[in-house]
Amino acid sequence: MSETICALATATGGAIGIIRISGPQTLEILSRVFSKNLTQAQPNTIHYGHIKNRQEIIDEVLVSVFRAPHSYTGEESAEISCHGSRYILSKVLSLLIANGCRQAGPGEFTQRAYLNGKMDLSQAEAVADLIASTNQATHQMAMSQLRGHFSSKLAQLREQLLKLTSLLELELDFSDHEDLEFADRSELMELTKTINNHIIHLAKSFETGQALKQGIPVAIVGKTNVGKSTLLNRLLKDDRAIVSDIHGTTRDTIEDTIDIKGVTFRFIDTAGIRQTQDEVEQIGITRTYAAIKKASIVLWLIDEEPSTKEINDISQRTGNKKLIVIKNKADKASNNSYKPLNFPFITISAKYGTGIEKLEQAIYEAANIPTLTENDIIVTNARHYDALVRAHDSIQRVIDGLEMQLSGDLLSEDLRQALDTLSEITGGQITPNEVLENIFKNFCVGK
Amino acid sequence: MSETICALATATGGAIGIIRISGPQTLEILSRVFSKNLTQAQPNTIHYGHIKNRQEIIDEVLVSVFRAPHSYTGEESAEISCHGSRYILSKVLSLLIANGCRQAGPGEFTQRAYLNGKMDLSQAEAVADLIASTNQATHQMAMSQLRGHFSSKLAQLREQLLKLTSLLELELDFSDHEDLEFADRSELMELTKTINNHIIHLAKSFETGQALKQGIPVAIVGKTNVGKSTLLNRLLKDDRAIVSDIHGTTRDTIEDTIDIKGVTFRFIDTAGIRQTQDEVEQIGITRTYAAIKKASIVLWLIDEEPSTKEINDISQRTGNKKLIVIKNKADKASNNSYKPLNFPFITISAKYGTGIEKLEQAIYEAANIPTLTENDIIVTNARHYDALVRAHDSIQRVIDGLEMQLSGDLLSEDLRQALDTLSEITGGQITPNEVLENIFKNFCVGK
Repeated sequence: MSETICALATATGGAIGIIRISGPQTLEILSRVFSKNLTQAQPNTIHYGHIKNRQEIIDEVLVSVFRAPHSYTGEESAEISCHGSRYILSKVLSLLIANGCRQAGPGEFTQRAYLNGKMDLSQAEAVADLIASTNQATHQMAMSQLRGHFSSKLAQLREQLLKLTSLLELELDFSDHEDLEFADRSELMELTKTINNHIIHLAKSFETGQALKQGIPVAIVGKTNVGKSTLLNRLLKDDRAIVSDIHGTTRDTIEDTIDIKGVTFRFIDTAGIRQTQDEVEQIGITRTYAAIKKASIVLWLIDEEPSTKEINDISQRTGNKKLIVIKNKADKASNNSYKPLNFPFITISAKYGTGIEKLEQAIYEAANIPTLTENDIIVTNARHYDALVRAHDSIQRVIDGLEMQLSGDLLSEDLRQALDTLSEITGGQITPNEVLENIFKNFCVGK
Repeated sequence: MSETICALATATGGAIGIIRISGPQTLEILSRVFSKNLTQAQPNTIHYGHIKNRQEIIDEVLVSVFRAPHSYTGEESAEISCHGSRYILSKVLSLLIANGCRQAGPGEFTQRAYLNGKMDLSQAEAVADLIASTNQATHQMAMSQLRGHFSSKLAQLREQLLKLTSLLELELDFSDHEDLEFADRSELMELTKTINNHIIHLAKSFETGQALKQGIPVAIVGKTNVGKSTLLNRLLKDDRAIVSDIHGTTRDTIEDTIDIKGVTFRFIDTAGIRQTQDEVEQIGITRTYAAIKKASIVLWLIDEEPSTKEINDISQRTGNKKLIVIKNKADKASNNSYKPLNFPFITISAKYGTGIEKLEQAIYEAANIPTLTENDIIVTNARHYDALVRAHDSIQRVIDGLEMQLSGDLLSEDLRQALDTLSEITGGQITPNEVLENIFKNFCVGK
């Protein structure tokens, strides 16, 4: 980390663009291209001046100076706040590179923060998740992880594992004295099972984490002309209207997702829905089955009493998935005489927007997302999940061994294994380079 | 300006997002949502902490504090550096608004800078131009204007006009004394003409300014299959390759423009070029004429000796525009035997890329852009051009009046008019609200 790195930290196209620099030469390099000498600048101060290439003035800027170790990376670092012209930003970057900086790779600033002990690995990963967060749930999970709640929980578990290990090793040391029983086996079993349950609980939260991170898949099914497309547009439009209340923040046009109470729902195979009106019935049906297969929640839209065959068909296809039956066209009195099914149902008019709030509530409830509090730990990262599953395997072997009355030396190997595996998550052990590369390669440049 | 305004100042989608606040309540409002009290913060200091909505932590941020009058706007102000999540940024903005900020309109920060005397109007306009600058020429023109070179030039001209006015008024005061001649009329004429020439020179630079700002229009014409599309792609590709050297800065996908030595050239009617191979000849010809009409530079691509009719046709259509004749398919020896035309020509192979550098040089020369130095003043703004033309009209009336031996009182009205008109540019006079609104409405929000 003797190199000084630089990168654009903002997206281009705004009023301001920020260029980040970090490394031992930060202030020397900056002083060569800035109108003032910054080598003696006080920490956390802002300096007005211009960036120049010999006589040519490239921009009037503000430079923020951070001194090691009290910076994001833990190194000497600075941020240049430029006018947000792509031309200017690329000029300033070129100039910094010509004066000794190296263009930073993806996530390299955060990687340095990790290597300099400013945060552990799971916190570093939370930074990327935080930047990618698009709703309350993903934001809260990332923030909790960034603030170290997951790390603390893992530290607790490791401490308990260490206690177990030392109890077993004590038993080993005194194994000649048959009358001594330092480690009460039933007590050990109790402790091991508790740890195991905690790990299982964490691993299980991954499913929720994934659903929240990727959006819960929802399929809209029903006959041609029943109003699927109208319903989809109604749901999307309501959501967009809320979001666009705040000027200056236009939402990513992630097609066909809506947020209900901070949870993202993703409508699948919507191309099909949008085209069904022109399609032959048979293609529609094949598509419907495919959509149901991929969904967690199925919205079945009807506008007349379904036949027993239809009911059986849908029930069978949805299986254990959540099925919400929706009676559309509430506005047409003529369609309202039938009593549909023995399913609970919701009455709406997709066209006029009535009943939509109630439907959204039903969708939210069907998702069955536990109400998250700030201290809830939800595993969202596949790498963490993988480590938890492996740690669980090791601990299960310890439990099996205890049941089989195996001696302590046979058990302690598995305990060590579990400890090491949990350490992988926060990076407490020395983490191989390729693992680090893999983690940080998905970051954006400039973070 | 008693309101405190806030806005996102960066584009969304980067690692970092900056929210700007300005106005008397800046630090009070911030202190309500930040983990530290900032009301006594020192100027130009950076503070680490978190933004919170009661108990909920929204982000870990850095807050930069600027104290009036030493800030961009001249007011109390601050910048919050957040994680670049759209969700977080919109949450923080909402929170600031809930606590008493108002969402800023386009250019409102710069408008306040102007109203608080931090810059004149032409400098304020240069800020928008600087952000929009895409190449060396537009950057240099905006930077020169921002740094006040245009403003100084105007100040000089106004000073000379004032001198003229006072000389004339002196003449008026002593008009009873017929033998006194305070204002030597021929000297007055000399001075007026000099001022007029300066104004004409500035107004004339607007043409260059516009060409540089909007890109110089270039048409590629020639028969079907002569390689127009290949040449276009070759020119675009060469340019893109240079620009993409710097990571982290992807260029706006402004279709079909290239930069040669810092000047932008804009290829027009390229949809036509891209389709000509499938088109009927007649449509192609109509299109060609339309493209030539809009272009400043015409590239005529040939791969065989043109007929006299063709030559006459093209010559007539291009008229006074720059015509560059390009002999394509240099790679095919069979095509190379003819001596084309009495025009100078360039031999290239669009397919293999030979001769392209020479062609670019020829395009650059055809544009006939004066080599700009840092102190050159180029008028780029239509509002400024309009004022210069009107000032010129007033001064021309003074010259005409002097020639007609009109008395001083008749001349001084026109001189006053010229003075006022020049003042409009920098906003020295009280500028009507609708003019200000018109100027700032084209800014991006957050600047």
